[in-house]
Amino acid sequence: MSQMTNTGRRKPTIRDVAAAAGVSRGTVSRVLNGGHWVSPEARTAVEQAIQTTGYYANHHARSLATGRANSVAFLLTEEHQLLFDDPTFPLLLRGAAEALAQRHKTLVLLVAGTPEERENVAQFVGAGHVDGVLLISSHERDPLLESLLASGVPTVACGIPLGHQAEITTVSVDEIGSARTATRHLMDLGRSRIAMITGPPDTPGGRFRVVGFREELGDRFDPALVEEGDYSRQSGADAMARLLERAPDIDAVFAASDRMAAGAIATVRAAGRVVPQDVAVVGFDDSGLAATLDPPLTTMRQPFGEISSTMVELLLELVEGRSAESATLPTELIVRGTA
Amino acid sequence: MSQMTNTGRRKPTIRDVAAAAGVSRGTVSRVLNGGHWVSPEARTAVEQAIQTTGYYANHHARSLATGRANSVAFLLTEEHQLLFDDPTFPLLLRGAAEALAQRHKTLVLLVAGTPEERENVAQFVGAGHVDGVLLISSHERDPLLESLLASGVPTVACGIPLGHQAEITTVSVDEIGSARTATRHLMDLGRSRIAMITGPPDTPGGRFRVVGFREELGDRFDPALVEEGDYSRQSGADAMARLLERAPDIDAVFAASDRMAAGAIATVRAAGRVVPQDVAVVGFDDSGLAATLDPPLTTMRQPFGEISSTMVELLLELVEGRSAESATLPTELIVRGTA
Repeated sequence: MSQMTNTGRRKPTIRDVAAAAGVSRGTVSRVLNGGHWVSPEARTAVEQAIQTTGYYANHHARSLATGRANSVAFLLTEEHQLLFDDPTFPLLLRGAAEALAQRHKTLVLLVAGTPEERENVAQFVGAGHVDGVLLISSHERDPLLESLLASGVPTVACGIPLGHQAEITTVSVDEIGSARTATRHLMDLGRSRIAMITGPPDTPGGRFRVVGFREELGDRFDPALVEEGDYSRQSGADAMARLLERAPDIDAVFAASDRMAAGAIATVRAAGRVVPQDVAVVGFDDSGLAATLDPPLTTMRQPFGEISSTMVELLLELVEGRSAESATLPTELIVRGTA
Repeated sequence: MSQMTNTGRRKPTIRDVAAAAGVSRGTVSRVLNGGHWVSPEARTAVEQAIQTTGYYANHHARSLATGRANSVAFLLTEEHQLLFDDPTFPLLLRGAAEALAQRHKTLVLLVAGTPEERENVAQFVGAGHVDGVLLISSHERDPLLESLLASGVPTVACGIPLGHQAEITTVSVDEIGSARTATRHLMDLGRSRIAMITGPPDTPGGRFRVVGFREELGDRFDPALVEEGDYSRQSGADAMARLLERAPDIDAVFAASDRMAAGAIATVRAAGRVVPQDVAVVGFDDSGLAATLDPPLTTMRQPFGEISSTMVELLLELVEGRSAESATLPTELIVRGTA
């Protein structure tokens, strides 16, 4: 690195950063715009040079000049507690945070679980404090989603927001195909009385996974073997209790979340039955909880890091005024000890 | 509630909300400014009237008029993962979220664990996207704290930011007194070889709790019985292993976090010793983890809800241009099964 430092009151420019880093101005610009086509060494040199020259203030000025906030909301339309109870959020959040930090954007985490919070968040977003919104976990006809769409703020949703499929860019997994894969795995194990614990029907996972389950079972589908949960562990335990009471001959269950699968396993065990010998279990998410269960949970892995980094990519396209196609990402069956 | 609704394009005013709610304009104003001196019934009526009249847009206009963002940052200067690993953050976050929602402010959660994130967050805060900052978990000489102080944005810190005690409004617990209470409890149980697992010395909990431990033990303080952790469970387990190797006669340990206490208990047990008969354990936080341990953990309860709601109160005073005195809140010894 050269000996150039920022003396006097003149604001450092990209030229100063380039000189301090010993790279071209184009390289500095590429680092500032996301780091594509830059070697790790050059990137580190530029980042150090940004610190030593104090380029920060100028960066800020650029943001004022474009009218951009240089920030993106990670908006969770659920109660705060779910942020901590649902192990999928940390995975999504980490992917988004890394993708945004690389692009010098601030991730702003907003939680809107109550009508009051929704009003405040709509106001904050509408006032231009963020350039766009990564919408996480939206329920059907979410009033906040309606107000985001009305305000015209660039928004990318995780999962297909029911009721707004045509109006919003989404990143989702193949819900129906994933559920078919999970169900097929249980059928291939020779299980004949396969139950399902679905998610809430106003969420895409709740709506579409049961469709795949039904399609794969075909004639063998029995509506008496379907119970609904809310993705929580307790709801999975309760749903499994209802299923076993109604159909004691159940020999497998597909749960639409790992947490519900964990609850179902506890219920099966409390009923004196063994997983997987008596009842095989497949979950959904592979959220980190799955591998820690005993036995470790067989589950459909969602690519959370890729989901959120893709959401960031598409959102930044929209923020730049370009178009962005919705994306569907594949899941993967992870076979462990429960099926 | 009256039948008044918002027809036509005229923007609804406080007068419209008051008429719709059947209350005075003063009552509406008090609800909008935090709900002091308003009956629950009147508050509910006003909140419903805000919805039915569509007062939201005007609320936003008021924010533009004052130049306020009507939002406050809950800023965590740690890695993202700690938000999910440390059970004290959800408790602080919930208290702050509730206090802010009542005052129609948006809580903006910012995480700055890397140099890049710190730069982005400093820029976001400096650009006026939040009116103030609730600073959580600051380490000594945190560069972000320096830049917040330099930018002049109103800031209230949780715990006493080492190196900046005189410059910043804080809400903290009586660290030294709390540690003395915990230590005294173990002494009163007749324990004579009492060890301590401290937090990192660049945090107030790491710095001051060991002071109280030392003060309470007086002549009986033995520096060989002090080990340092980083508040995590694993660090507590490791510290306890080092302590037992050095001093197998330890009959009690005070850990500066519940998570470290949980790790210490696991190590004690793995060494074939029984908690509390052989080794009594006292933790710190009562973060929700404590009650779920086996045996349930005796610990010093921090009033997290009160800490964060007090932080919000003081911060909003600063935002309004008034002064705010730092506050020290009491902790409470919660005796359960480990000491």
